Amino acid sequence: MNFEYSDKSKELQAKLKAFMEEHILPVEQEVYEFNANPETYWKHWPGMDALKQKAKEAGLWNLFLPKSYGDLSPGLTNLEYASLAEIMGRVLWSSEVFNCSAPDTGNMEVLAKYGTKSQQKRWLEPLMNGDIRSAFLMTEPEVASSDATNIETSIKLDGDHYVINGRKWWSSGGMNPACEIAIVMGKTDFDASRHKQQSMILVPMDSPGVNIIRPLSVFGFYDSPEGHAEIVLDNVRVPKENLLLGEGRGFEIAQGRLGPGRIHHCMRLCGMAQRSLELMSKRAAERIAFGKTFMDFSSIRQEIAQSKCDVEQARLLTLSAADKMDKTGNKDAKDLIAMIKIVAPNMALKVIDRAIQIHGGKGVGPDTPLAHYFVAARMLRLADGPDEVHMYQLGKSVIKQYASPK
Amino acid sequence: MNFEYSDKSKELQAKLKAFMEEHILPVEQEVYEFNANPETYWKHWPGMDALKQKAKEAGLWNLFLPKSYGDLSPGLTNLEYASLAEIMGRVLWSSEVFNCSAPDTGNMEVLAKYGTKSQQKRWLEPLMNGDIRSAFLMTEPEVASSDATNIETSIKLDGDHYVINGRKWWSSGGMNPACEIAIVMGKTDFDASRHKQQSMILVPMDSPGVNIIRPLSVFGFYDSPEGHAEIVLDNVRVPKENLLLGEGRGFEIAQGRLGPGRIHHCMRLCGMAQRSLELMSKRAAERIAFGKTFMDFSSIRQEIAQSKCDVEQARLLTLSAADKMDKTGNKDAKDLIAMIKIVAPNMALKVIDRAIQIHGGKGVGPDTPLAHYFVAARMLRLADGPDEVHMYQLGKSVIKQYASPK
Amino acid sequence: MNFEYSDKSKELQAKLKAFMEEHILPVEQEVYEFNANPETYWKHWPGMDALKQKAKEAGLWNLFLPKSYGDLSPGLTNLEYASLAEIMGRVLWSSEVFNCSAPDTGNMEVLAKYGTKSQQKRWLEPLMNGDIRSAFLMTEPEVASSDATNIETSIKLDGDHYVINGRKWWSSGGMNPACEIAIVMGKTDFDASRHKQQSMILVPMDSPGVNIIRPLSVFGFYDSPEGHAEIVLDNVRVPKENLLLGEGRGFEIAQGRLGPGRIHHCMRLCGMAQRSLELMSKRAAERIAFGKTFMDFSSIRQEIAQSKCDVEQARLLTLSAADKMDKTGNKDAKDLIAMIKIVAPNMALKVIDRAIQIHGGKGVGPDTPLAHYFVAARMLRLADGPDEVHMYQLGKSVIKQYASPK
Amino acid sequence: MNFEYSDKSKELQAKLKAFMEEHILPVEQEVYEFNANPETYWKHWPGMDALKQKAKEAGLWNLFLPKSYGDLSPGLTNLEYASLAEIMGRVLWSSEVFNCSAPDTGNMEVLAKYGTKSQQKRWLEPLMNGDIRSAFLMTEPEVASSDATNIETSIKLDGDHYVINGRKWWSSGGMNPACEIAIVMGKTDFDASRHKQQSMILVPMDSPGVNIIRPLSVFGFYDSPEGHAEIVLDNVRVPKENLLLGEGRGFEIAQGRLGPGRIHHCMRLCGMAQRSLELMSKRAAERIAFGKTFMDFSSIRQEIAQSKCDVEQARLLTLSAADKMDKTGNKDAKDLIAMIKIVAPNMALKVIDRAIQIHGGKGVGPDTPLAHYFVAARMLRLADGPDEVHMYQLGKSVIKQYASPK
Repeated sequence: MNFEYSDKSKELQAKLKAFMEEHILPVEQEVYEFNANPETYWKHWPGMDALKQKAKEAGLWNLFLPKSYGDLSPGLTNLEYASLAEIMGRVLWSSEVFNCSAPDTGNMEVLAKYGTKSQQKRWLEPLMNGDIRSAFLMTEPEVASSDATNIETSIKLDGDHYVINGRKWWSSGGMNPACEIAIVMGKTDFDASRHKQQSMILVPMDSPGVNIIRPLSVFGFYDSPEGHAEIVLDNVRVPKENLLLGEGRGFEIAQGRLGPGRIHHCMRLCGMAQRSLELMSKRAAERIAFGKTFMDFSSIRQEIAQSKCDVEQARLLTLSAADKMDKTGNKDAKDLIAMIKIVAPNMALKVIDRAIQIHGGKGVGPDTPLAHYFVAARMLRLADGPDEVHMYQLGKSVIKQYASPK
Repeated sequence: MNFEYSDKSKELQAKLKAFMEEHILPVEQEVYEFNANPETYWKHWPGMDALKQKAKEAGLWNLFLPKSYGDLSPGLTNLEYASLAEIMGRVLWSSEVFNCSAPDTGNMEVLAKYGTKSQQKRWLEPLMNGDIRSAFLMTEPEVASSDATNIETSIKLDGDHYVINGRKWWSSGGMNPACEIAIVMGKTDFDASRHKQQSMILVPMDSPGVNIIRPLSVFGFYDSPEGHAEIVLDNVRVPKENLLLGEGRGFEIAQGRLGPGRIHHCMRLCGMAQRSLELMSKRAAERIAFGKTFMDFSSIRQEIAQSKCDVEQARLLTLSAADKMDKTGNKDAKDLIAMIKIVAPNMALKVIDRAIQIHGGKGVGPDTPLAHYFVAARMLRLADGPDEVHMYQLGKSVIKQYASPK
Repeated sequence: MNFEYSDKSKELQAKLKAFMEEHILPVEQEVYEFNANPETYWKHWPGMDALKQKAKEAGLWNLFLPKSYGDLSPGLTNLEYASLAEIMGRVLWSSEVFNCSAPDTGNMEVLAKYGTKSQQKRWLEPLMNGDIRSAFLMTEPEVASSDATNIETSIKLDGDHYVINGRKWWSSGGMNPACEIAIVMGKTDFDASRHKQQSMILVPMDSPGVNIIRPLSVFGFYDSPEGHAEIVLDNVRVPKENLLLGEGRGFEIAQGRLGPGRIHHCMRLCGMAQRSLELMSKRAAERIAFGKTFMDFSSIRQEIAQSKCDVEQARLLTLSAADKMDKTGNKDAKDLIAMIKIVAPNMALKVIDRAIQIHGGKGVGPDTPLAHYFVAARMLRLADGPDEVHMYQLGKSVIKQYASPK
Repeated sequence: MNFEYSDKSKELQAKLKAFMEEHILPVEQEVYEFNANPETYWKHWPGMDALKQKAKEAGLWNLFLPKSYGDLSPGLTNLEYASLAEIMGRVLWSSEVFNCSAPDTGNMEVLAKYGTKSQQKRWLEPLMNGDIRSAFLMTEPEVASSDATNIETSIKLDGDHYVINGRKWWSSGGMNPACEIAIVMGKTDFDASRHKQQSMILVPMDSPGVNIIRPLSVFGFYDSPEGHAEIVLDNVRVPKENLLLGEGRGFEIAQGRLGPGRIHHCMRLCGMAQRSLELMSKRAAERIAFGKTFMDFSSIRQEIAQSKCDVEQARLLTLSAADKMDKTGNKDAKDLIAMIKIVAPNMALKVIDRAIQIHGGKGVGPDTPLAHYFVAARMLRLADGPDEVHMYQLGKSVIKQYASPK
């Protein structure tokens, strides 16, 4: 393992930190409040476009995309991008400024990797320009969707079209007024072998039959303006060219889509945890009770020391997964990716929770990012598969590795 | 210890369960949605008054009040009431139906115990009738308020009035349109000995200078319609008769106010945890993944078995605290009360969290009470003093008990 | 639930505490050292018989036996005995003084319940008199013995004798020079239905073919003089009258044997944990580092406060299990018994571990009972079935209870 | 960070693994049994010298020593040595074979760094040759020795000699018949400033007045033949040339001595945990209960998956500390060293404990290294300072770092 950041990455880190300091932090709370205000839930914060323009000009755009697209992306490795994701993770809404937010990142990668020229022209370009947003429709309310073989949405060929029927929820991005395109996972053949039944298809959000039922709250947050939508697909017809890669290849695309996204999520979680640690350190240095500064209570020092240990370990593990992906590919890094998906959200929850506790009432309220961090981290113990699913597979893989060594 | 419920308690338990079944559960979700809807945040759910009337008629009214007030309260012991609080705890908004919700319960106890005849006439009667609601203003943003000696709000005598200045937050109940009266904790004498500086005073919410700044969200929830308010008291003048018990006796009142309220909170937490356990058991019996019903995964059985152990223990501990309070008084039960205040919220958080995880996306969303339970339980690791304060005092008390035995 | 101790129990508690104070504590360390000394591992501490005699005279004899045998046992309920077991648990070797130590207690119960007159005359009487000791041979090295259907030892009828073949280990009591009789679990019929294959049989330890292979250490301790033996049964012949209850009834006896023994174990664990809490409180009040008494470190107070909460809850749970057994029988108390078997050893481990940590090097060494407590508690996460087996069954039972309510 | 192992390290890893496979594993259990046998507790296992000779010949000698001493040490960096320490950690007694066992390693480093030519000739050479062993006398029973300012042993100048008086315990190595020299920490000046009172001095074990009181057991293990001794120093006289570095410099030496030793301990703990993980994986693949192979229980997969995550993270953290020490020095790596000292033993305890549980009775007994691993890891939550001391200092350092950013 070699986690030394490249010069390119270091330079971008410095630039990104400066950008956050200058442009993001001064309006951080304003945007949180805008997004938490029922009157503006589903609107775009008016200053966003200007920020995006600034980020583009600063060369801080599409940083996540591992392939270089001329000016539109610097073509970083997973390891090079990792530390940038951590920096963005410190402010929940900031990834969008750099066109690096889920689910667009995963969708863009899918389009870049598997899209036809014409699909790329129609959807990838505006996404990469930040002109539109996208959604990813996978999870269904009626089945344990982390087992993709359970998916019940049907995609049926009917002449030159596919007709899609199903109910999806936790469709991240689906509430966004700028969301124009969705990638939908469904089944084209319920009788094929378990992992050949699924396909992915591009569905424009304005297609007739795409019915947004409601936004779902996560512990009371809506994560606006992207939101998490419940959507009924009622006889939605799209041209058959909208199918990605081919019938029965949905599972394969899903597998390929996951690796980098998990690095992003986990590094952002490191960013949240790191900032929580900094916030609680500051609080500990200032607050007084029972005649002592918080930092003079050994129990508070323990919380902070333990948090430092936790963040540092999860970060190293995530970097090592990114490094492995870069060097030997996503498939080879499968176990490490499962490991960070298990470790990072739980680590972040522990650290954020300690920070909340040290902040008292302020910690659960709207005046720090901690409560929202917590909910975001809690969501990530479920999103992209609950811990249990990853442990079930990782456990099996580890046993096989050690129980019958070559 | 004798935790056998009295016949009176058992009879009320049966009645209350039937009432919940018949009147509360059918509208549970409707009320949650009403309270979570920005358009109706701060309004009263229209069906509430009819429910209250039914509860009154059923003799399920003011059950918490340990002194009998004729028809208005049955005069239960702490132990007798405990199991009723657990039953109410299963539906977050249900306590109000029985006029048993915080902070009114604590406020009514204070008025019943320390109020003058005229104060009782003016405020206790309408509170006991459920005609008005109340708030309790203790916590301040600028200081660690769990150490009551830090409180900075001033209560200054000025002729026949007291003039109150300060900033309060987490003033539970303060957003409620029905809230007419607040009990405010402040200092009448900043130079007195540490525990003689504080006083409590009755402040009508419509007094000039009572400025409600904003409702505070708790992890995105507003806990409407009661809410948690940030309130500035700006030269608020109230007649000097509004002072409770006397100058310098605020700390004493605060101490007396706490015991029963903690039993209530902790039993409600047992109710939330118990119902979470039931919900996850049901989910485990129904849901399927990787070809197995959830209940056939040993890890899921462990979560459920452990949760059963956790709930049972916390319930027994809380009942033993209630029993002790009944038999030898709040002061003698001090350590046990600290213990349940530490144990119950943490237990509930663990159990609810497991239930959430087993529910997947549904668990963090609005379709079960789990997410809101979680937040309510998390809040209670801070409200009425953070865990750390209770452990700090309990630890000292235990050491003294064992390190120098008689 | 009514956990109020009866007068009989209270009187015995007082007597037992006084006996411990006067006769046991002064020689506690001496006996530990005798038992830890390789030269005296498998010898009886010379003072033991005199102590037993004193205990007999004080009426502190066979307290565990729920049926009265005239002077030889007071006939206490499970609840009445529970607190006595806790008191004995404080000194690891003290149960023997009162003829209340495992595995004799379980064996005596089996003989009392299922033994023939002649078996009782031959083995129960000397056991109840404390003249001999016994062993219980259940676990086998080759199979997961917590699933009793796995047992491989064979018990074959051959004329007037049964011939026994198998390998047992963790045969508690088997190293004791005073051990004269063993109850052996094996299979009389490998083809019968799963729970009808097993039988239990009485095997005198001096029978030809009973080969003691070695004593097993538990984390370096031998738990002498009883010890944990590995024993090969090589064509051991015993008269067919030695079979208990009948062929195929071994599983049934095993089930009946377990309940009370678990109460005993769990209450002793409460005793160990309680004393650990007292020891760490004392240490906290005395020891100084970095200019502060340990008790002035908030983290140490937290350890102690949390331990107090843990012990108290596990004790209440165990008492409630004992109470339930007394009132509605062992079968009805099945879930509660599983719960305490899961809770008590884990609770004790946590509390003892904290006490060890606060004692520093002294805590892991031979000068306090803490290290041995820890190992005893750790053993009990496995003995009588590992946690996982109990959670597997309890989880199922809980799910059934809540997932299909009447 | 760059954790890529150098070619030199990789080559030694391969050689060491082959050596372990060929020479150590075949006799692993034999040596454990020899060391656990009261009759041979304090004797050297007869095969040891031949193994040492083989290791020397293979160039696997004094690997820990960061400075090259010709043939006698290859002069590895901390990072290069780290993975070798992990490999040795898999067999508790194997470090000695490579002359890499504590406390000799620390003592040799001290002599190499601070010893005079003549001290090196007299003690360092035979130590480096593996001809003698050594002890380190720091901890005292009467004071919290992790706060070195508490040390009470006195070292008084008397003419040409120093006279030493005090009581030490947990003097690792002190029971070893081959132990010829001890480094003793004491105070030459009780009135100097807090960190200038201490000095270190060389004390031959055969000096009159060095009275070995007893070996201390650790949870029943003696860790023979090195052992942990309680030693009274009763007017021990040594030539004044035996003082190391100078009066008042003991604290400074202690600080310098610690860094590398902590890397060694923590990497050995990673080795123990890694092997525990492998052992439990094997067990999970073989053992059957309730009709299923262990590995088909999701709870067992979780234990294994979680353990994999735990080991991997602690290893990365330890490597990053070693890397930091190599690149910017021990002082700069102070926080990272504190972090691994907190993390590694706790991680190992969790992993080993899970492995024990999956092994059932076998896990706590003498037939696997697990029980001894556990005790070794538990000891290391105290040795070289308890967790709490490291967290107390790390917490402070972290708060300072974040609470007043440059």
